[in-house]
Parts: sequence; C-alpha cells; structure tokens
Amino acid sequence: MANHLASKGIIVQLWAREEEVVQSVNGKHENSIYLAGIPLSEKVVATSSVAEAVNGAEQVYLIIPTPFIAKWLEQNQSFLPWWVPLVCCSKGIEQESLRTPYEILVDELPGKYHSKLAVVSGPSFAKEIGVGLPTSVTCAAQDAEVAKQVQLALATKAFRVYTATDVIGAELCGALKNVLAIACGASDGFGFGANARAALITRGLAEMTRLVVKKGGKASTITGLAGVGDLVLTCSSSLSRNYTTGHTMASNSLPEHKSKEESAKNFNKDLAVAEGVKTSLAVHLLAEKLSVEMPICAAVYEVIHKGVDIKTALRKLQDRPLREEHDEYQGTWVWSAL
Amino acid sequence: MANHLASKGIIVQLWAREEEVVQSVNGKHENSIYLAGIPLSEKVVATSSVAEAVNGAEQVYLIIPTPFIAKWLEQNQSFLPWWVPLVCCSKGIEQESLRTPYEILVDELPGKYHSKLAVVSGPSFAKEIGVGLPTSVTCAAQDAEVAKQVQLALATKAFRVYTATDVIGAELCGALKNVLAIACGASDGFGFGANARAALITRGLAEMTRLVVKKGGKASTITGLAGVGDLVLTCSSSLSRNYTTGHTMASNSLPEHKSKEESAKNFNKDLAVAEGVKTSLAVHLLAEKLSVEMPICAAVYEVIHKGVDIKTALRKLQDRPLREEHDEYQGTWVWSAL
Repeated sequence: MANHLASKGIIVQLWAREEEVVQSVNGKHENSIYLAGIPLSEKVVATSSVAEAVNGAEQVYLIIPTPFIAKWLEQNQSFLPWWVPLVCCSKGIEQESLRTPYEILVDELPGKYHSKLAVVSGPSFAKEIGVGLPTSVTCAAQDAEVAKQVQLALATKAFRVYTATDVIGAELCGALKNVLAIACGASDGFGFGANARAALITRGLAEMTRLVVKKGGKASTITGLAGVGDLVLTCSSSLSRNYTTGHTMASNSLPEHKSKEESAKNFNKDLAVAEGVKTSLAVHLLAEKLSVEMPICAAVYEVIHKGVDIKTALRKLQDRPLREEHDEYQGTWVWSAL
Repeated sequence: MANHLASKGIIVQLWAREEEVVQSVNGKHENSIYLAGIPLSEKVVATSSVAEAVNGAEQVYLIIPTPFIAKWLEQNQSFLPWWVPLVCCSKGIEQESLRTPYEILVDELPGKYHSKLAVVSGPSFAKEIGVGLPTSVTCAAQDAEVAKQVQLALATKAFRVYTATDVIGAELCGALKNVLAIACGASDGFGFGANARAALITRGLAEMTRLVVKKGGKASTITGLAGVGDLVLTCSSSLSRNYTTGHTMASNSLPEHKSKEESAKNFNKDLAVAEGVKTSLAVHLLAEKLSVEMPICAAVYEVIHKGVDIKTALRKLQDRPLREEHDEYQGTWVWSAL
C-alpha cells in the first residue's frame, strides 16, 4: 500500500514497530524482514515514532493485525490527527469482542474521529498490484466525501477505486471470505469439481449476506468488489493460504493419499497462519449470538475446532432440505438457507 | 438432463430430430452423433415423434437451440400438453427479436400454458453431473408450485435444486455470462492476473443487474446460482468455449505469440460455436434499445463485431471516470457504471 501511494509521487511516512524494519526500509529501500525481495520507492520513509510518521499527514493508513488494534490505539491514539481520513486496511474479527477493525476504532476513538474513518477492501493480491496489473477495490466510509478523498489518493489507471458507504458490510465480507475459501479449498481437494465450487461460492455469498444484513450492513455490498470480487479471488487461488489449508485438509483425508507426512508439515504451517482458521471460530460465535444460519461456515468451524470428520460435515450440507433460493428479510431480499 | 432424470428411475421419452440419434439411443444406449462415449440409461427411450414423446408425460423438458424454438413451436405446439410443467433449458437471446426462450414461449403459446412454464439454470457442467459430482441449480417459474414440482423431479443428494420466481432474470444471466466469459478469457490471455478477472466478474455482475432490472427481473437473481454461480463457473474454466475464445483472441494479439496458425485454426472453430459471440451482438442491441450502460459487454461486441483492437477496447474500460460502486435505481440498488 505504501509503495503504491509512493508510485504516484506521494511521500509516505511509514511507521514500523521494529527498528530493523525501519533501518532496512530507509537504508536498502526494502523491507527485508517481512517483504524481502520487493524493492520499495525512495518516497517511502520509515520511522519508529508514530508522532513522526503522522506529522503533517494528509491521510493516515492503519495497517495493524486486528488482534493488536485496540492495544495499539491505547498507546498511540494521542498522536493520531482527527482532521484527516483514517483508512483502516486490517481484516478480520477480534476474537474476544467479536468486533471488526472499524467497530474497534469507533469504540476506542473519540467521536471527532468517527466521520473520518474509511476502510479499503477488494480483490487485490499485493503481488499483482506491485507489477501494475489491473486491479479494482472499494473504499467504504460513512462520509462519502472521505471515501472520495481516499479514492483520489489511491487511484491510478491500473488501480481503480470505487466508493461505497457500507463500512461494516465491506469489513465482514473481508473476514468471511477466508472461512469460505477453506470450504472451497476442501471441495477442490476432494476433487468435487467446478460445479461444486461455484455452488459453494454462491451459497457462501448467501451466508455473508445474512450476517451482513443482521449486523446492519447492506446486501448490495456482498455483490461488490469487497464481497463477491474478493470471495471469487480468494476461493479460486492457491495463492490464498486459506484455500490451500482447506485443500490439504481434504486431500489428507482421502484414502489414496500418499505422502501424508509432507502434507502434514505444510498443513500445520498453513493452519497457523490462515486467517480463516481463527475467523471461523469468531464467525461461529457471531452467528450464534445473532441467530444467523451459516451452514457452510458452521461446517468449517466444526471440522477445524470440533474435530468433526470433513466428509461428515460435507454430507450434512447435502442433506439439508430442499428450498427456495431467496427469502424476504426485513424488507430486503436475502438468500434462503443452504 | 435425460440421463440425470433416468438415474432417478424416471422413464424419459426423448424426442430427437434425427433418425440416427433415435436409433443410436434405443439400440446402443448412447447418442453417438452428439454425445459419443457417454452411456445412457435404458430408461431413456427415444422417438422421432413429438406426439409419442409427450404421451402421458408428467413434465416436458424443452431443450432446443434458441434460434429454432419459435419455428419448432409452430410445427409442434399442438402436441404439447398444457397441464404439466413445461421446463425450458435453452439459453441465449433470439437474434432478430431479442427475446429470451421464455419470452418466445409466452409469445407463441396460448395463455393456458403460461403458468406451467419454468426454466432451469445454474453452474452445471454436464460432465460433472454425469459422474455424480455435487451440483446446485435454480428452477425459476412464476408459479412457485410449478417450480417445486420440477425441483422434486430433478433433485438428488448430489444435485440440489433451489426454487425461484424470476424467470427472465435467470434466463438473461444464462445468456450474458457467455459474453462476460469472453472478456475474462481475454483478460487471462493477456496475463492480466487474478485481481483483474475478479474485478471483471464483479463489474460484469453490475452490468447483468442493470439489464435484468430494466427488463423487469430481480437484482437478487444475479446473486444466485443462475447469476454469480454460473458466471463464476463459465469465467474460470477452459471447459467453456466462450472463455477459450476470449483467451485465444488476446494471446494471438500479443507480440510474443508464436504459433499463430495453430491458434487461428482453433480460434475459428471456437468462434463458430461460442454462444457469447452471437449473444454479444444481441446484448449490444438490447442494451442500446433499453439505454442500459454495459461497458464490458460493449467492449466484447466492439472487438468481435466492429474489428476494434482488443488493447484499445480494454484501455477504454480503464479510462472511465472514477465513481461510486452502487447506485439507487427504481427504488432498488444497482451497481453504478464501470
């Protein structure tokens, strides 16, 4: 993100926690700790001081792993300017509180910041953006003017930015897609074919819609770049750790599977870093709390966190009663249960 | 479709135009003319008499190439029972009249048939259904009871059928996906990457929605199996001739392309049979007639039918002004233009 902005000639003051990262970025124009091999623009200047990083900023981008946002704000909120857009790019759901990053920001920051908050989401493998391949994303903010400011800052010919107002919807989609990618990976790992994956993606969208609408978001968001766009990307690519986690889970369970040990090693690595593994627990709790039916997400949760056999979980999905595709729900259409 | 129904123990009386097909199905339990190598159930019995085929039928499935439906009805309508579901599985848009198969049926059949009409659509490569891989489709009928009857007839554990009421929406999605698959194939043929394809799919859904809503269909249909489900399937698979047509178009235009001759041969074959090639013209005329903005479909039309250079067409897509993702339209949300 920093490099993308810098490629437009914008000077980016990058805050980093680790002194090694700061030195690597400033000395070698590379983040050799987390992004080795990717050259960074000289317009990206790192510092370990938050005050320095935000000094004179026209926009602030918050890109911190979701579990650490609240803690980080506690320590650094006083440095944050409230008069410029604060763009949150973190994804996921906080485990204890079941809050999205935006909800954390609203809870933890004084009211004067709230109208300046924005999130960016959409189908965007960083590797492809880095080499200038065409990419489209959404910037959502309650204040349409704020979304437009971010749109102007980020957009290039190859990087199209659309604006939206449904912040919660965009965020939930970004979290849920990782759980559904595990399911799609598992389906492919079983060799279930293209029909099955297309059905999982579609019925996965139905689950996303139900949760988003229940949380006050808009059904239309699910049809946009942050919804279907990012879901399709994540559910179809071995570049996604969530997808590969599901894939390995399924192929390991097949009787003809040969090199179990090798896979098991990769699998444990994936399991540790795949966002969707943690998110499946949070989504399960959220769905239970809000009484939202999410059978595919539930299957992923049961397999990963309850030790349910993956074949049993899938069979349960197929055994559900036949029904209509869409329901009316609170005046808007939503999908019916799987 | 016949074989799928027969696999449930249902006796299927299959009408076929060609005597060779009838003899092949009845003699060898195989359609050696059009589906060589796929064994058919003994419960599929062929005849070249329409009267015989529909005799005593509980449901009638109409699977005729769209350009021939009106003509076929002219000759055979008198044999069709009006008191059982008439399920149309043809896809596309009639070139001259810009009608979908359902619209042709409503126009050409007496009113007593209308409430019995249904269409089936969704992500369903026949090859995968044939070997029992999990598949989900939609059956849309204005009369929910008719949709339910078809659902019951078709559904198995592996073949899930959802019901819906938006017939026009389901049909338009089934036609439009082929045009968008050409665009996605072209994007992949250029090596544009996964971000670009996900964006094309998402913005393609936006175009589908605008046309469907303008034609009186429901925006929600686009989010279902006949919409996003089938679109994702068709746009991601080299099993789709529309996708491969776009892919070849793009890769042939690359300077580093080597074996132009070989590709050109395959390409001309694809171009002749890819549904999306013809549909792109029909969609262009329909969009113009209804004043619906469909920039991706327009690009496909211009490249195929107007000889516009494919790079120029794509550049035009990227040069469009920045904007918001969704618009309000006739009281419902729709996507904004690309």
